[in-house]
Amino acid sequence: MSEPPSPAGARPADDLSQDDLDLAQYESRLARPVSLKVADLQRGERLRHVIFSGQFTPALLEDLAETADTIRQLSKSATGQAFLTGLLSHKRAMLYFTQPSTRTFLSFMAACQILGITCNEVRDPRTSSETKGETRFDSIRMFSSYFDLIIMRSPLARLAESCAYLMNDLERSDQRSVPIINAGSGADEHPTQALLDIYTLQRTFNFENPHDSPVEKLEELQTAHGYADLRRGLANKCYAFCGDIGRGRTVRSLAMLLGAYEGVRLVFVSPDHPTLRMRDDLRRRLRDRGVKFHEVDSLEAEVDGQPVIERLDALYMTRVQQEHNNPEDAEAFAKIDFSRYKLTPALVTRMRAYAPILHPFPRDQHFGEIPPEIDRDPRAMYFRQARNGMWVRAALLAHLLDVDSQIRRQGLREFSERHEYSS
Amino acid sequence: MSEPPSPAGARPADDLSQDDLDLAQYESRLARPVSLKVADLQRGERLRHVIFSGQFTPALLEDLAETADTIRQLSKSATGQAFLTGLLSHKRAMLYFTQPSTRTFLSFMAACQILGITCNEVRDPRTSSETKGETRFDSIRMFSSYFDLIIMRSPLARLAESCAYLMNDLERSDQRSVPIINAGSGADEHPTQALLDIYTLQRTFNFENPHDSPVEKLEELQTAHGYADLRRGLANKCYAFCGDIGRGRTVRSLAMLLGAYEGVRLVFVSPDHPTLRMRDDLRRRLRDRGVKFHEVDSLEAEVDGQPVIERLDALYMTRVQQEHNNPEDAEAFAKIDFSRYKLTPALVTRMRAYAPILHPFPRDQHFGEIPPEIDRDPRAMYFRQARNGMWVRAALLAHLLDVDSQIRRQGLREFSERHEYSS
Amino acid sequence: MSEPPSPAGARPADDLSQDDLDLAQYESRLARPVSLKVADLQRGERLRHVIFSGQFTPALLEDLAETADTIRQLSKSATGQAFLTGLLSHKRAMLYFTQPSTRTFLSFMAACQILGITCNEVRDPRTSSETKGETRFDSIRMFSSYFDLIIMRSPLARLAESCAYLMNDLERSDQRSVPIINAGSGADEHPTQALLDIYTLQRTFNFENPHDSPVEKLEELQTAHGYADLRRGLANKCYAFCGDIGRGRTVRSLAMLLGAYEGVRLVFVSPDHPTLRMRDDLRRRLRDRGVKFHEVDSLEAEVDGQPVIERLDALYMTRVQQEHNNPEDAEAFAKIDFSRYKLTPALVTRMRAYAPILHPFPRDQHFGEIPPEIDRDPRAMYFRQARNGMWVRAALLAHLLDVDSQIRRQGLREFSERHEYSS
Repeated sequence: MSEPPSPAGARPADDLSQDDLDLAQYESRLARPVSLKVADLQRGERLRHVIFSGQFTPALLEDLAETADTIRQLSKSATGQAFLTGLLSHKRAMLYFTQPSTRTFLSFMAACQILGITCNEVRDPRTSSETKGETRFDSIRMFSSYFDLIIMRSPLARLAESCAYLMNDLERSDQRSVPIINAGSGADEHPTQALLDIYTLQRTFNFENPHDSPVEKLEELQTAHGYADLRRGLANKCYAFCGDIGRGRTVRSLAMLLGAYEGVRLVFVSPDHPTLRMRDDLRRRLRDRGVKFHEVDSLEAEVDGQPVIERLDALYMTRVQQEHNNPEDAEAFAKIDFSRYKLTPALVTRMRAYAPILHPFPRDQHFGEIPPEIDRDPRAMYFRQARNGMWVRAALLAHLLDVDSQIRRQGLREFSERHEYSS
Repeated sequence: MSEPPSPAGARPADDLSQDDLDLAQYESRLARPVSLKVADLQRGERLRHVIFSGQFTPALLEDLAETADTIRQLSKSATGQAFLTGLLSHKRAMLYFTQPSTRTFLSFMAACQILGITCNEVRDPRTSSETKGETRFDSIRMFSSYFDLIIMRSPLARLAESCAYLMNDLERSDQRSVPIINAGSGADEHPTQALLDIYTLQRTFNFENPHDSPVEKLEELQTAHGYADLRRGLANKCYAFCGDIGRGRTVRSLAMLLGAYEGVRLVFVSPDHPTLRMRDDLRRRLRDRGVKFHEVDSLEAEVDGQPVIERLDALYMTRVQQEHNNPEDAEAFAKIDFSRYKLTPALVTRMRAYAPILHPFPRDQHFGEIPPEIDRDPRAMYFRQARNGMWVRAALLAHLLDVDSQIRRQGLREFSERHEYSS
Repeated sequence: MSEPPSPAGARPADDLSQDDLDLAQYESRLARPVSLKVADLQRGERLRHVIFSGQFTPALLEDLAETADTIRQLSKSATGQAFLTGLLSHKRAMLYFTQPSTRTFLSFMAACQILGITCNEVRDPRTSSETKGETRFDSIRMFSSYFDLIIMRSPLARLAESCAYLMNDLERSDQRSVPIINAGSGADEHPTQALLDIYTLQRTFNFENPHDSPVEKLEELQTAHGYADLRRGLANKCYAFCGDIGRGRTVRSLAMLLGAYEGVRLVFVSPDHPTLRMRDDLRRRLRDRGVKFHEVDSLEAEVDGQPVIERLDALYMTRVQQEHNNPEDAEAFAKIDFSRYKLTPALVTRMRAYAPILHPFPRDQHFGEIPPEIDRDPRAMYFRQARNGMWVRAALLAHLLDVDSQIRRQGLREFSERHEYSS
């Protein structure tokens, strides 16, 4: 019955830690396909936890965009501001970011603050409690004791999902339980980044606001510019992704979401190297869904008899994630002509007049995938994209905390006619 | 008259620093017994600074519990929330935590936010000003210039108390002065932890709410369960503390507070080793107060002819603070059978049906003093305890900032009949 | 066309980085004299960005002091507090402090919170985005996407100014643009410190409030104390600066601001060493403006046939910034009698009865330029100064965000007669 004489009777080192056992208990739930998990993360029609981009259907994306539009409109008037900041001023969020990301972190902070939610943060990879032997799940339950919402970013691929299941189990046994939002888990999922990419495309392809659309009038584009077949919305368009396709989790998530729209065509432009080109799992998932896609190694490559750069309706540039290079990649990478994966003013000139340029940011000044000369082109939508992220994350929070219909009603009260889109 | 040629005329190294002199000037006040200090920390009947758990009388503990109950009730309704977050929205707190503690820190943050207080923090062990030669007292006066309340946690045993005296002196000379709350000072005092332990026991021994009491109906316990003598309240009960009694400052504070209730019996369960068993000063203080207590080395040991585990009305488990082990302890500790100080499902089965299990948290997954299998037992009250801490700390802030009677009045306005206790 | 085979086609190392190019594009604007820049930093009569202390005219300083006085008055009543915290509760500030300063940081936090502004912070010298190759300007534009105001402190001398020009350019091209406040840039400028120094002098030389003026009644000073010529206000007074004149940027800024008042005389007291005495640029600028000043090496030195310590109307003490010592200074410094640059109770006794002692803080306990024995002298105004900083920074924010006239109107509504000055 006596313990081994290691420090104060600790378990032997080859044993599994309680942290390991905690995750292991959810193994069978974690192993299910996403489609089976989705119901676990909802309550009725409403999301309870946000873990995968696969939870966002086109219908929900429309709904969130409408809430986001209403929030940004309301934030322009004094009564709207007072309404918004009073809406959830009794709620407290925990931003638990053990994987650093200033951009995502600040965007969520701002989104919370727009709705009056008070923010708290833990950003150290190891909290003081963990150094005293506390399990991750005990930490999460501590956060759920004090706060009403946990927004978490972790290098552990499945942690956010497991925490959602922990919260579900607590809920079932009538104990305190709060929503979990995945703000990036390992190399795996970053659902709210995909959300803001989509929202940016939604606004651009509305052709209503000069800040969101390089050319604002759809009619003008159809006639004067000669894009006779151009229609509003995300369906039936050609989206090109350029750069580090293999390691870009935002590419993966956005591609899958776009694949749910009708008649969409995707083009992946990357060096033909296993680290950088599309991974098998995405290829398989797109095929399973019947999405049309092309893999090419240059923006000059032809698709439907036209160079990609001239054909695309939207261009999604990415940073080459060199901090994740393997030592064995170095030699092969030295032979790659990376200049093909950098945008230039000359290339931009050849793009369609209305086609937005997106980038998940940060961009890399040393690589130069988008040189700053391009920033002033009306097609450069990447700064706008950041602010869009704040609004649509606020809309997501409003959805989770069930105040979105209240927001819509307030919107209707304030604006008698249809929304005007502006900055 | 000229200074020695050390860097820019600094004082010689063997001199006392101004920091030392600052503390030295309070030496005579610091040396008094707690009972003499209490008046210095009050203004009339109301606490001004919170430094020692000895400041909490049973009457004050009842008062704080009632405020805490009212706050948690108000926080359930929209009007109650609006009332609470507007209450102190013009107040700004400084959380000055040079000794890290995520749990205590977040609990105070949440408590402040419930009442609308804005939080600011300094958590670096050395602020930038201190590296420029600023004294601790100058730092504290800077905080008191900008903020309305200082919540501090320091590895220096007497710093919080000295700061309270500094504030008293400023008040006397008609200068700006703010309340000081001790959120843990060295190995010495952690008064608000004792506060939340007591509040958890108060709620449990109210036998009113299924979330707080393993068995909710006192009558049922007296008849069906055969605990005919069981009564509401903290008096006349047996409290057992198990684990690291010697180094647990929460044990020390809680034991002293419980000793103020009538007919209480305390049992301390620890290995018979000078580092781990009760210290002389606590033993002496309990004897001086005439509190009945027992020291045993196992939960199976008999007290009043019954094994402790079956006899106790509440069990307070603790973590063995191995990070504070001395090198000379290692050999002796290797011979101790630490399994006696870990709770097991089998032991829990033998506990009284209503007896709550508490733990100051974090628990140690490697040592395993409470394995997670026990979490689902209705007697496991340690997660609940954390949330209780937030509410009672909010009540303490309300008391210090003199809005507690306003809260009670609002409570009466909102609930016509007596409080219902719920999550 | 192919890139050199360095990591993924990065630009060669001897190239200028984009960060360098970004700053270079503003070179011609940065090189202009301050007087030409001032208009760029205003919109009409109102400041848009706060970069230089040279932007503060005596008229603006009067205006800000009046707003600050009103804010502190309003903050004393419940209706005033509610008015203030509701005023800008929809605004979010970014405090971007890559050069640490706890004091300035907390003062701005408190100032924001007084007006209801929500604060966010980035304090790491390198954000996670910068390690991924993001330029400083991209970081600033990210902040401007999420927040309504950027308060920045940087070791780079011209960064805040360049960011103001970036924001101006964005504004011109109808893109999102927010105000920039310089909270300290390198060894160069710290305009809001000068602001709080001036505000402290304004309050002291109003002779109205016992907390702000060592002797409160001007009449009494003129008659009983024999200062027959003493008048209200900053003009026609003698200001002495003592200690590290060469490296004190607060000295430089304050001296220039005081030089704009009529009949002012400045005395600079420092060791006669090139590191510590007045720099040529300040000497030249004061001469250009026709300001009367003296350079002496002791508080005992005579000015107008009177020792400085007896002649001065206000004394500005400073810390010797030893962390900036050059190795070659060590030998020369060892020969300096630094005791001449430390205040003593004996010296204070000889000062005029009404003359305030200021210090930008932190003071250095090891050097001891102001020993704490002096803290209780009514002339010691340095703690008061800190709290003044909070109020006048709040006034500056109110000015920038155009709510100052709203504040004045509320002030008139609350107080029928003229302001009473109190703590």
